[in-house]
Amino acid sequence: MQLTPKVKEILSWYESDNPGTKANLARILMEGRLGGTGRMVILPVDQGFEHGPARSFAPNPAGYDPRYMFELALEAGCNAYAAPLGMIEAGAATYAGAIPTILKINSSNSLSTTKDQAVTAGVRDALRLGCSAVGFTIYPSSEYQFEMIEELTEIANEAKECGLAVVVWSYPRGPMLDKTAETALDICAYAAHIAALIGAHIIKVKPPTSAISLDAAKKTYEKYPVDVNDPVARFKHVVQACFGGRRLVVFSGGEAKGSEDILNEVRAIHAAGGNGSIMGRNAFQRPKADAVKLLTDIMDVYKA
Amino acid sequence: MQLTPKVKEILSWYESDNPGTKANLARILMEGRLGGTGRMVILPVDQGFEHGPARSFAPNPAGYDPRYMFELALEAGCNAYAAPLGMIEAGAATYAGAIPTILKINSSNSLSTTKDQAVTAGVRDALRLGCSAVGFTIYPSSEYQFEMIEELTEIANEAKECGLAVVVWSYPRGPMLDKTAETALDICAYAAHIAALIGAHIIKVKPPTSAISLDAAKKTYEKYPVDVNDPVARFKHVVQACFGGRRLVVFSGGEAKGSEDILNEVRAIHAAGGNGSIMGRNAFQRPKADAVKLLTDIMDVYKA
Amino acid sequence: MQLTPKVKEILSWYESDNPGTKANLARILMEGRLGGTGRMVILPVDQGFEHGPARSFAPNPAGYDPRYMFELALEAGCNAYAAPLGMIEAGAATYAGAIPTILKINSSNSLSTTKDQAVTAGVRDALRLGCSAVGFTIYPSSEYQFEMIEELTEIANEAKECGLAVVVWSYPRGPMLDKTAETALDICAYAAHIAALIGAHIIKVKPPTSAISLDAAKKTYEKYPVDVNDPVARFKHVVQACFGGRRLVVFSGGEAKGSEDILNEVRAIHAAGGNGSIMGRNAFQRPKADAVKLLTDIMDVYKA
Amino acid sequence: MQLTPKVKEILSWYESDNPGTKANLARILMEGRLGGTGRMVILPVDQGFEHGPARSFAPNPAGYDPRYMFELALEAGCNAYAAPLGMIEAGAATYAGAIPTILKINSSNSLSTTKDQAVTAGVRDALRLGCSAVGFTIYPSSEYQFEMIEELTEIANEAKECGLAVVVWSYPRGPMLDKTAETALDICAYAAHIAALIGAHIIKVKPPTSAISLDAAKKTYEKYPVDVNDPVARFKHVVQACFGGRRLVVFSGGEAKGSEDILNEVRAIHAAGGNGSIMGRNAFQRPKADAVKLLTDIMDVYKA
Amino acid sequence: MQLTPKVKEILSWYESDNPGTKANLARILMEGRLGGTGRMVILPVDQGFEHGPARSFAPNPAGYDPRYMFELALEAGCNAYAAPLGMIEAGAATYAGAIPTILKINSSNSLSTTKDQAVTAGVRDALRLGCSAVGFTIYPSSEYQFEMIEELTEIANEAKECGLAVVVWSYPRGPMLDKTAETALDICAYAAHIAALIGAHIIKVKPPTSAISLDAAKKTYEKYPVDVNDPVARFKHVVQACFGGRRLVVFSGGEAKGSEDILNEVRAIHAAGGNGSIMGRNAFQRPKADAVKLLTDIMDVYKA
Repeated sequence: MQLTPKVKEILSWYESDNPGTKANLARILMEGRLGGTGRMVILPVDQGFEHGPARSFAPNPAGYDPRYMFELALEAGCNAYAAPLGMIEAGAATYAGAIPTILKINSSNSLSTTKDQAVTAGVRDALRLGCSAVGFTIYPSSEYQFEMIEELTEIANEAKECGLAVVVWSYPRGPMLDKTAETALDICAYAAHIAALIGAHIIKVKPPTSAISLDAAKKTYEKYPVDVNDPVARFKHVVQACFGGRRLVVFSGGEAKGSEDILNEVRAIHAAGGNGSIMGRNAFQRPKADAVKLLTDIMDVYKA
Repeated sequence: MQLTPKVKEILSWYESDNPGTKANLARILMEGRLGGTGRMVILPVDQGFEHGPARSFAPNPAGYDPRYMFELALEAGCNAYAAPLGMIEAGAATYAGAIPTILKINSSNSLSTTKDQAVTAGVRDALRLGCSAVGFTIYPSSEYQFEMIEELTEIANEAKECGLAVVVWSYPRGPMLDKTAETALDICAYAAHIAALIGAHIIKVKPPTSAISLDAAKKTYEKYPVDVNDPVARFKHVVQACFGGRRLVVFSGGEAKGSEDILNEVRAIHAAGGNGSIMGRNAFQRPKADAVKLLTDIMDVYKA
Repeated sequence: MQLTPKVKEILSWYESDNPGTKANLARILMEGRLGGTGRMVILPVDQGFEHGPARSFAPNPAGYDPRYMFELALEAGCNAYAAPLGMIEAGAATYAGAIPTILKINSSNSLSTTKDQAVTAGVRDALRLGCSAVGFTIYPSSEYQFEMIEELTEIANEAKECGLAVVVWSYPRGPMLDKTAETALDICAYAAHIAALIGAHIIKVKPPTSAISLDAAKKTYEKYPVDVNDPVARFKHVVQACFGGRRLVVFSGGEAKGSEDILNEVRAIHAAGGNGSIMGRNAFQRPKADAVKLLTDIMDVYKA
Repeated sequence: MQLTPKVKEILSWYESDNPGTKANLARILMEGRLGGTGRMVILPVDQGFEHGPARSFAPNPAGYDPRYMFELALEAGCNAYAAPLGMIEAGAATYAGAIPTILKINSSNSLSTTKDQAVTAGVRDALRLGCSAVGFTIYPSSEYQFEMIEELTEIANEAKECGLAVVVWSYPRGPMLDKTAETALDICAYAAHIAALIGAHIIKVKPPTSAISLDAAKKTYEKYPVDVNDPVARFKHVVQACFGGRRLVVFSGGEAKGSEDILNEVRAIHAAGGNGSIMGRNAFQRPKADAVKLLTDIMDVYKA
Repeated sequence: MQLTPKVKEILSWYESDNPGTKANLARILMEGRLGGTGRMVILPVDQGFEHGPARSFAPNPAGYDPRYMFELALEAGCNAYAAPLGMIEAGAATYAGAIPTILKINSSNSLSTTKDQAVTAGVRDALRLGCSAVGFTIYPSSEYQFEMIEELTEIANEAKECGLAVVVWSYPRGPMLDKTAETALDICAYAAHIAALIGAHIIKVKPPTSAISLDAAKKTYEKYPVDVNDPVARFKHVVQACFGGRRLVVFSGGEAKGSEDILNEVRAIHAAGGNGSIMGRNAFQRPKADAVKLLTDIMDVYKA
């Protein structure tokens, strides 16, 4: 299938990557209802790891079965499905070739008191499971951030040699950051920029709030203001931090909320030139028909 | 020997695994008095490591001789026998091919003040000793949990490449958890889910109590209640956390207790669709005839 | 994209393969005008290596530029494009993700007096170039056949670990075989069976003639006759030799010939349950419009 | 192109290095407007990592696009461009061979509370990206300094085997040092000397102030005084600490400041026999024409 | 230094290569009097290996000293200098960075009765010596051709990973080929095409004669004639065989001959779009002034 000019343009940004990595980026970008548009909606299901099974799946118990997630991603027409090793292993053969998968390589859990994650899979797993990308979380500002980044460095290098793409979840947290700071605009843009500098192909961050948190940065934002009360301006600033828009950036949906709130956020991402959404709990905790409806509505915004 | 439809169905859950791993799972599932039923009783003997020899074997000194354990497992018709390196080495030739073995790869001891374990064997040992699986303990919530998980990640990847099965003992303990929390229902289900996400083929957890321990989870359990006073409902919840029942889960017997208490617990596991019991001290600390009787009674429950 | 039931059935034949290999087989089977039918038309361009550039490309000089071949495969709606390293390198980035590629790992040339081939690429190349499969030629009956098979054995093992598919060109030639014998029905079926036995996922052989060549086999064919004068019966016999039809088998077009001859052959392959054609010179030596027309006509036969 | 006598002399200092490393040093020394003079102006852009994107690029938003930095370095006629992995990856193919690049191998960020850095790339990356050198920061006096130095030791050894040059940013900070001490003359000279002792080919330090900070050193400086109020004398002292001037040493520009201040500093470096400047924020935060003008003016000083 | 549009265009042909390899190709293409034109003159000195020292250097004994060759290449303004390990080692430090070098990795000698070569260096040597490329000879048609190609395959893969370029000398010789056949037009084009298919970045062949040698090819050349009596048409045909002109191809000067004959040949290469000459004996066996004059005259033709 011929790639669209938009997807070809995006691939041209990744000029140092080998054709294998480009092919896997193309597979993700050409898949599903948004295939070819340069926008993406990704279904991520690592909440069972992060928050435990009941908090994740009790609202819609069909989700206890990992095959449900593949089905949901396929029915909704997502670009890719991201999950930890066990979830991917449980459906990778049944859905082989049906939808690009992103193997989430490290995970934390709510039983941990440290801001770190465990590596639970490797590049060899990604190859044997037919994944298009590996996913990795870093916590900029954590006291473990440098170790996490160094783990990512090794995995990313190996993944790129093997023709896989690298997706980085960049979630600031640590002793310097209170709850507000974790999603403050300056911190969010910084986290996205760090992921780009480490060599991420796709960057995932949380939607930025209007806060400016880092003292050292406040002077800059006063002198070169961003209209922090305008969501579009905020998303634009994060896009800008991703190499002036030359790296793919997607935004998480965050905690479960109402559909209209989600769609408004998506409209702002779309207007700002963000590349899409990665939508977990807001999707799989609803009954499937509702989830497909929401994901489809989101995609319609991105297609406009 | 033809596999039973039940065992074939179980193997189908492990769709990403190679035939070698499936064959070893089949060997365990087709062995002994419960062979073919999809239920298992496994004899584990790592208590010498965990609690010291006298606490483990003084009640029935025959158990000091590792060959006794092979004999007990065989006579009782267990599905498999699990033990650390030295125990397996001491009988692996005499009982070669007689009963599937699970090489317990890491162990702790009562002389340690840290909630960690030492890796005492590797996949190459499991191959040279003819084991069907490797066993590994993680302590979710321990300050060492991420290191333990990363050790398991490497061992599990190598084991799967070599066609072995992976059994994970998932025992929550750590600074966030008091004694009650360690076996609370929500924590137990979480621990089982973590093992599934890391790619365990067989998950071993402790029987859950009626407690709900994690603050962040309480709201969920209020909204989507589990009948915590019904043991069957509790076991069902853990089974659900194992990919909706698509991963084998067995329950430890815990501390030595009376036969009727044990059998009642087994009846609940059976009714909940759990895959069986892993029964150490309650078996090998009794005289052999009593132990065989108890194990046989347990199996009769599972066969019903 | 959901796989068709036909493709799912085909993937189920490859039950020992990991999901990565299945995904790459699915990518080939779901691509192009025949996507989902279980039939394939593959464009192979290794004739420059085998016969030299002028004999290959002078009839249609556009073909000297490797990008032409990607374009031709895409426009015609082929399932995959197969070529040696240099040809793939020359277009793999421009056409990344646009069409599945098969990296032809070994090649011979007309300047050789030995019936052997040189390995000119490896699995690491296939990964970095984003290929879905590696292709390898063996010459059953050559004095070098065992070395060739051993090279294939190593490459196939590595490819399968990395989630790639393995395509084997099985072309009998050697001191025991005269020109007639090389495409005799018994020899052709034998060559296909050898490829299946070595673990090929896709088998490529030449269309069998009505000859029965091997003395040792004649008695069998007399006792259990094949209607050698019926092309459908001959193709059916080769399909049968591919594990009773449970391995994908495609037939080469051979030397350039008229369109109607080609289509008749294709009709016979189709009727016999063969999985398709691998069509080089008969495609790329015509002007592009003619080539697309012929390939489309062939696909229409297979779609019927 | 014949090397100049000056560059040949400089290469002769690196008598233990292999010709590959010398060739890469020569590439840097022969490039740009200062090519052949033995002086260098390097454009470093790791401030996005160190200070965040807005603080780095908001004053001149063109800099959000990594290609801008390659263009700026080229237009101004710099000797080399230094940046972290993502920045180099984003332009390494477009500007392949156009200007020597230095891959900054480790980086910190303003969200960290520890005086450490994360390794974000390796020598293999430097080779695949065509870099002439790797760059590494150490923090002498940090509680992590020995780990940092050991990381550098391994990377430098590998880089030298592969014919790359090693650039060391030596920035004292740690519990023993207050803000004044970090750039005190004795500390700065000490930091430069440590880098030389570790085997750096090019040493980068901050301009020294007139302070003498280390108690243990004060007696020496009293007995053998340096005219700390004369910038030339201070720079001379640092040059002296770099093996009596037999290692290349360049000075950072530090925080953004006025052009005349910068040029005065450059004049002092020039007079002291320092090898040049590494000028980031003072260059890329201005409009391009202004930046080129400033860099050109600096180079004119060094060429005099 | 900004690359010229012509060099950028040439680099774009190598779309699968990493920026390191592109940078080294750029270094060769931007060097010397032809820098930036897309044409090259390379000085190769492996004749001492191939023909012995006296046959090579007695006509101009200055050439016994390897440094002479670096000087000659530099003075004449060549794009690169190619030689075996010992020759490069003997001058690589003195001329580090002064001119791109090509490490000739394998060599034969006149004392051999077999058409094979010995590998005398590796990619690690190329890195430590600062070479921009490795060079490798294959003898298509030799009874050792497949072994030679397989050696090249491994070296080329490693070289590309390390960011080096690969130059292939493709010299047909073997039992099927008499002296005439070795340089026949069809054979020469075939040899060039084989090098391209193996993944060569720069292809070196001998100038083709008007002969058509391979029986199997004659029919093709009758049907699609090349004006074999026109040198320009012959060179054009070889250029065409190099992926329609999308791989760099240079022609050897062959045996020592008169300057005017050489220049006429160069004019034909130039008119045909060939990328240049690789000129050994005709250069270094003359007094240096004469050699520089001849090489300069050749370059003037290519610059026209």
